[in-house]
Amino acid sequence: MAALLPEFAHLDLDRKARTGFPEVVFCSGKPDSVLPDIFQRLANANGEVLGTRASPHQAEIVRAVLPRAEYDPLSRILRVPPDPPRNPEGLVAVCSGGTADSAVAEEAAQTAEFFGARVLRVYDVGVSGLHRLLGRIEDIRRARCVVAVAGMEGALASVIGGLVSVPVIAVPTSVGYGANFQGLSALLSMINSCANGIATVNIDNGYGAGYLATQINRLSCGHLPCPTP
Amino acid sequence: MAALLPEFAHLDLDRKARTGFPEVVFCSGKPDSVLPDIFQRLANANGEVLGTRASPHQAEIVRAVLPRAEYDPLSRILRVPPDPPRNPEGLVAVCSGGTADSAVAEEAAQTAEFFGARVLRVYDVGVSGLHRLLGRIEDIRRARCVVAVAGMEGALASVIGGLVSVPVIAVPTSVGYGANFQGLSALLSMINSCANGIATVNIDNGYGAGYLATQINRLSCGHLPCPTP
Amino acid sequence: MAALLPEFAHLDLDRKARTGFPEVVFCSGKPDSVLPDIFQRLANANGEVLGTRASPHQAEIVRAVLPRAEYDPLSRILRVPPDPPRNPEGLVAVCSGGTADSAVAEEAAQTAEFFGARVLRVYDVGVSGLHRLLGRIEDIRRARCVVAVAGMEGALASVIGGLVSVPVIAVPTSVGYGANFQGLSALLSMINSCANGIATVNIDNGYGAGYLATQINRLSCGHLPCPTP
Amino acid sequence: MAALLPEFAHLDLDRKARTGFPEVVFCSGKPDSVLPDIFQRLANANGEVLGTRASPHQAEIVRAVLPRAEYDPLSRILRVPPDPPRNPEGLVAVCSGGTADSAVAEEAAQTAEFFGARVLRVYDVGVSGLHRLLGRIEDIRRARCVVAVAGMEGALASVIGGLVSVPVIAVPTSVGYGANFQGLSALLSMINSCANGIATVNIDNGYGAGYLATQINRLSCGHLPCPTP
Amino acid sequence: MAALLPEFAHLDLDRKARTGFPEVVFCSGKPDSVLPDIFQRLANANGEVLGTRASPHQAEIVRAVLPRAEYDPLSRILRVPPDPPRNPEGLVAVCSGGTADSAVAEEAAQTAEFFGARVLRVYDVGVSGLHRLLGRIEDIRRARCVVAVAGMEGALASVIGGLVSVPVIAVPTSVGYGANFQGLSALLSMINSCANGIATVNIDNGYGAGYLATQINRLSCGHLPCPTP
Amino acid sequence: MAALLPEFAHLDLDRKARTGFPEVVFCSGKPDSVLPDIFQRLANANGEVLGTRASPHQAEIVRAVLPRAEYDPLSRILRVPPDPPRNPEGLVAVCSGGTADSAVAEEAAQTAEFFGARVLRVYDVGVSGLHRLLGRIEDIRRARCVVAVAGMEGALASVIGGLVSVPVIAVPTSVGYGANFQGLSALLSMINSCANGIATVNIDNGYGAGYLATQINRLSCGHLPCPTP
Amino acid sequence: MAALLPEFAHLDLDRKARTGFPEVVFCSGKPDSVLPDIFQRLANANGEVLGTRASPHQAEIVRAVLPRAEYDPLSRILRVPPDPPRNPEGLVAVCSGGTADSAVAEEAAQTAEFFGARVLRVYDVGVSGLHRLLGRIEDIRRARCVVAVAGMEGALASVIGGLVSVPVIAVPTSVGYGANFQGLSALLSMINSCANGIATVNIDNGYGAGYLATQINRLSCGHLPCPTP
Amino acid sequence: MAALLPEFAHLDLDRKARTGFPEVVFCSGKPDSVLPDIFQRLANANGEVLGTRASPHQAEIVRAVLPRAEYDPLSRILRVPPDPPRNPEGLVAVCSGGTADSAVAEEAAQTAEFFGARVLRVYDVGVSGLHRLLGRIEDIRRARCVVAVAGMEGALASVIGGLVSVPVIAVPTSVGYGANFQGLSALLSMINSCANGIATVNIDNGYGAGYLATQINRLSCGHLPCPTP
Repeated sequence: MAALLPEFAHLDLDRKARTGFPEVVFCSGKPDSVLPDIFQRLANANGEVLGTRASPHQAEIVRAVLPRAEYDPLSRILRVPPDPPRNPEGLVAVCSGGTADSAVAEEAAQTAEFFGARVLRVYDVGVSGLHRLLGRIEDIRRARCVVAVAGMEGALASVIGGLVSVPVIAVPTSVGYGANFQGLSALLSMINSCANGIATVNIDNGYGAGYLATQINRLSCGHLPCPTP
Repeated sequence: MAALLPEFAHLDLDRKARTGFPEVVFCSGKPDSVLPDIFQRLANANGEVLGTRASPHQAEIVRAVLPRAEYDPLSRILRVPPDPPRNPEGLVAVCSGGTADSAVAEEAAQTAEFFGARVLRVYDVGVSGLHRLLGRIEDIRRARCVVAVAGMEGALASVIGGLVSVPVIAVPTSVGYGANFQGLSALLSMINSCANGIATVNIDNGYGAGYLATQINRLSCGHLPCPTP
Repeated sequence: MAALLPEFAHLDLDRKARTGFPEVVFCSGKPDSVLPDIFQRLANANGEVLGTRASPHQAEIVRAVLPRAEYDPLSRILRVPPDPPRNPEGLVAVCSGGTADSAVAEEAAQTAEFFGARVLRVYDVGVSGLHRLLGRIEDIRRARCVVAVAGMEGALASVIGGLVSVPVIAVPTSVGYGANFQGLSALLSMINSCANGIATVNIDNGYGAGYLATQINRLSCGHLPCPTP
Repeated sequence: MAALLPEFAHLDLDRKARTGFPEVVFCSGKPDSVLPDIFQRLANANGEVLGTRASPHQAEIVRAVLPRAEYDPLSRILRVPPDPPRNPEGLVAVCSGGTADSAVAEEAAQTAEFFGARVLRVYDVGVSGLHRLLGRIEDIRRARCVVAVAGMEGALASVIGGLVSVPVIAVPTSVGYGANFQGLSALLSMINSCANGIATVNIDNGYGAGYLATQINRLSCGHLPCPTP
Repeated sequence: MAALLPEFAHLDLDRKARTGFPEVVFCSGKPDSVLPDIFQRLANANGEVLGTRASPHQAEIVRAVLPRAEYDPLSRILRVPPDPPRNPEGLVAVCSGGTADSAVAEEAAQTAEFFGARVLRVYDVGVSGLHRLLGRIEDIRRARCVVAVAGMEGALASVIGGLVSVPVIAVPTSVGYGANFQGLSALLSMINSCANGIATVNIDNGYGAGYLATQINRLSCGHLPCPTP
Repeated sequence: MAALLPEFAHLDLDRKARTGFPEVVFCSGKPDSVLPDIFQRLANANGEVLGTRASPHQAEIVRAVLPRAEYDPLSRILRVPPDPPRNPEGLVAVCSGGTADSAVAEEAAQTAEFFGARVLRVYDVGVSGLHRLLGRIEDIRRARCVVAVAGMEGALASVIGGLVSVPVIAVPTSVGYGANFQGLSALLSMINSCANGIATVNIDNGYGAGYLATQINRLSCGHLPCPTP
Repeated sequence: MAALLPEFAHLDLDRKARTGFPEVVFCSGKPDSVLPDIFQRLANANGEVLGTRASPHQAEIVRAVLPRAEYDPLSRILRVPPDPPRNPEGLVAVCSGGTADSAVAEEAAQTAEFFGARVLRVYDVGVSGLHRLLGRIEDIRRARCVVAVAGMEGALASVIGGLVSVPVIAVPTSVGYGANFQGLSALLSMINSCANGIATVNIDNGYGAGYLATQINRLSCGHLPCPTP
Repeated sequence: MAALLPEFAHLDLDRKARTGFPEVVFCSGKPDSVLPDIFQRLANANGEVLGTRASPHQAEIVRAVLPRAEYDPLSRILRVPPDPPRNPEGLVAVCSGGTADSAVAEEAAQTAEFFGARVLRVYDVGVSGLHRLLGRIEDIRRARCVVAVAGMEGALASVIGGLVSVPVIAVPTSVGYGANFQGLSALLSMINSCANGIATVNIDNGYGAGYLATQINRLSCGHLPCPTP
């Protein structure tokens, strides 16, 4: 009995070989007594760690034991970058509707960068002022995959979907109020998009979109699926 | 006891004087034994009748007693037009996302026309192919009010809202499948629109949007509010 | 990397020319490091700023750099009024159900006033005490547009809709408890209103209703739609 | 094994003594092989039967064995009246919003009449045309209990609740379309009513409201609670 | 502009004459600057005040100006009792499922007592231990109206409904966790009760149930409906 | 391409060895071209087949090729019984609220019987008439597991849960109307039960409850878990 | 006025050049008077047509004018294949949970094949019998993209997501009953998947998944994004 | 009047005799003035107490009067163990998906242990890394009952259900974010499981699952149902 949480956690150190990506740490809710240890063990095993949803306090206690860990308070990403860094390849475009969506967009962008994708950021181009998006569309069309981050009515994904020839990963955000029901309105919009080539991840799940975009980007750069586990 | 429905219905013959518009008949569900009589009494009192959601069968039995009634199977509007017809004034634009939204869009358009508005139809201009909408936007911007009809993710209203300077009445439709939940996805999108100047009516309520657009159009043509009831 | 939010925000300084209204600032959630700068740049460009959902603290830090900014803690509107002020024109009536709806009602009323409408306030006239509304109905009927603000069962919009000849913009509020589900009950009521000439905005969206009412009021005063963007 | 349904049904012949009312038959879904028998056994035991939600076909097969059974196709009530009939006492007012609510309203009214209440019908007095309700309010105020039947936004209950001094039993109906969600909008409205003295029954449950109104009416006529079971 | 809330509130001092009950104050959310004044004006006009959902702090500031006000922290009722007190008449039974429902049950009980009903409290008799309820059922059956307060699955109302011959007012509470969705589970249970003679009020609305129970109890004691307003 | 459905279905002929129970056929929706063949192959492999949700037509076409198959139109179970039949062991009680729940209750009872449990049926004992349940409770308490089947407010499970010392498997049914939302009300009731020892299966899932009850009953008769797969 | 639908439809003949894929026809709901004409115009312009959700009747009337159109009643795909056919490239794996998901899985598979992907079908490998999936996993791991189609609890996507290194497109189906709410349970499961590299399309949207899988597969074969529109 | 809560609580001291288990205390929300007394009275009557959802503060005030009470901050269980302790019998396996589910899993495990079951803990074996679960499956298959605890998409229960021959009690947790809606996604997954032999308890209800698992485990060890109450 008692709070013996550490022994409950099975680190998946073999994961990088199996899927091409090391295990990622979802920091939110992890107790202080466990987190630094998890980071250290993963850093030792993989030479790199990606942590998401980290609080400033968590960043501090991890950096106390792993000084080369870096923290971004906007995206809440806490990471130990590979050394030397990966050479960015391909192109992932991360677009967002409003400034309030920036945290989720950055989580997607930094995840993709961490895993080796070149990233184009196109923020604050919501559909209520179309000229902003249209002014950037030629750049966006060069990407191998587009991440579309939007809250409220989440229409950005549909509009982009009609303008590009590559997959669009839609990320609904909980930005909004009233009948947005913490992101449900944007989620339903994106799931029901009338445009082709769109799939949706969970509300505020910038990490998931960045990960998936990286997988697509890597395939487009000639990486083949990983061999049998 | 027994089906004495007719005496339950209180026709509001005084309504035209009070609000500027005669009473409108929601035909769906009205029994055959009652509907022709209602049309006749309203035609006698007001010289005109607008009926919505009429079935072909209902059109037939009403036209049997009121041969000058006209029926449109797409919008399901059954009407006795004023004689002589009103002179169309102002301009209401009715825009729709896909061909499947045409029935609702026509209900809005024909309602507005019936009550005296000039109507511009801009159909099948959904956001997944923006060039279609942008090619017509100069015309739309001349309208005094825009009705935006769309199902699925309902993004049309937001995009139009950012491009015009007049009120946009958003009509979610039940067009779609799966997680559209019979129009809920479009309704939530429109209610949560990030654009200014948008308000929403019930799912598939083309009539309500056409009525409201007419009120706005009339005000813009110099008609003042009706005097005290 | 890091919190470089300011460069993510694209101010739409051209908006006033395009739609007749300057860009409005949704203050809630904007970081302290950004908000005063946004106000200053908009004030310089447009000579006026309307901010909504501002906290007292935000008001303070903006007023530190823009002393002529005014703040109303009830509506949470933070504004830099045009100088000289606009001449109020037309008439918008803002009605509310209970005293707890006053904050939302004031957001609507002050938005409409900011953009140049004359406003009639008729508060605390909920339908459970009809004499209060009926005693004011003659005044309300003079308005070019009515904003109806109500929580709980949101019946106010339907009752007013049956008594006036102009558009009613319904604003559901999150006022209530239990099965009101943070405003859903009022939203569904208003969307399903049996009265004609009603459209609905998001829960607690007083600003949206005030903006739309202003558009209608301006049209009724002879302003035409804005020319091509 | 096999469809031996009859023996599954336990008739509660003792119920009249226990609660003052005989058992009532919910006909919908009862198989043809069972229903006539149920009616006959209850008629023999109690000298009267009230059946609700009966189809015309069910009325026919019951009347084949019980010729004095009466059927009303609007309310779908199938009944064997007590002989001699009860003397109506007290007063229950049954009010409804629109003609489409008449079936549910009649179910309430006829249930109350069957159990001995005098009933005042005030139909088609929805809140979008308040003059209709206000013109009848003096009569309504004489009732010992009011049943308010309405679909769509269900505002009728709140308005009546503010005008009378007795209990209002609210019956949401599934009348409406789109975001009424088969009566959910009216149900939420009534549950969230801002008026005092209102309680709500299930969607379309006219019978339940009529039963409850009768209980209240009987108490007001001096009947005391039934003795111990 | 500015927080001029007091003038927004219209006290309904005439209400006692019209409905037999003075206006009741819903304290939650009322600002400190307004509440004592409201109590004082109502106390002056009616000689008594009933306030619901009052916080301890609100009790304190009201008692500072009205020392004879009484406060019960469990029910959160803050009241100025009539002097001399009403003679309790009839009988209302207030039953609750668990100890966690006591606050709502007390709100119902004290409301009924304030308005003149004799009250029988039968608490902690949830259906998972039927012997507790059955041991008290003879007492409950003497009441003119039963209030059934329960959270979680809310089955108490149905069980009582089958055991008494008088109206049961069901009060769902938000007590529970997980899929109770803040009282929705109990609300749906009570609305769908298979027992006769049950109607439901809003989640946690003990006051509403107590008010309605009083109306029924008064009718059963020979009080007639109030005359025309 | 084309409707080559048969080859898509992988029969799990090894299942009986692995879990102690042969594979069961969910007949609803299976095409006529496939179903008889599936039954025959399973009958050959296992000497017995249990099919659920079979239509009368499906029963006919299966019996054409497998004459010893038996069909019960109430439970819609189509079965090829083992020969010789299993000796019934232990005791499972299947209780239901109303006659309309009998089909689901029979699906549970016959599933349990098919798999070898002795079954006690206690039907039409809903909580609105408690004497019916209490009169049978001694018998029910002898069972090793109780299945409680109920629609509407689904309170039966909680009441039984408080009266027995063994697991109660709750089966919500879609019986009811209005705000029962096709069984959601009963599902939420059962999931939120205040009684101990209750778990819930899907709406109308009599089969699932019967299967689980059999597993529990078998354990209570001394059968041990199956060895490694 | 009248049913002039054909002129409402704007065919997007230029689409193939812009996005690499010709316009696709959603047949469901398209009137008979329009559909053959649409097919013919698209066949003339593009030399190929893909139609989804076609009924057997629609297949017939299109084949009457376009005899080389092919129809598959399981997937409901009606297509005019390119001549000569595309050389299949890469590999897309389409996996499904149960036989009832086959129609949706085939829609995905045939869409991908139509647009030029090699497709591996792995059907009826739901998670309740893991050996079926694990026996095929080596083949699945060779794919460039996996489509996972499942109803009920939709767990297939998560399990596959943990076993492969490429994107998984999850397709919830409406297969199931009771609390599956027409696919909502599977949709929520997939959106909330704990596995990495998963995104979700609308319920039953096999086409959308097949289209997206093709885009990914093409990128993995070295096709670059389309040039500027 | 006033906070006389203690007398509202009826302790069910007779419960152990009736059901084989003593009454359990749901601590959350119980006031400080009551909780220690409840523990003491139950300890005196039964010689043991199980409390759930206790805060550290509550543990402290109970231990002040009952020093032999033990508290586990992870599971939040506060208990007075029987002395001498029960001999553990049978086997219950408690499996969980992720480390964040450990608190709920421990509540289940410790409940089962308290009531006398031997418990096998298999934590952090979520379906996105199947090898973790498969590596432990032989041990799990020896259990008499399995408790499957998982949040997010809750697929663990289905996967286990297909691998064992005994009942699986599924516990959805509120772990997750976005569209998990505080555990609704996992709840729906588990209720809709395609595997046999699964039933579900409320979200985060580890206690309920542990209790039910104990009942099943006891039956499997030869304990018979309790005699008549």
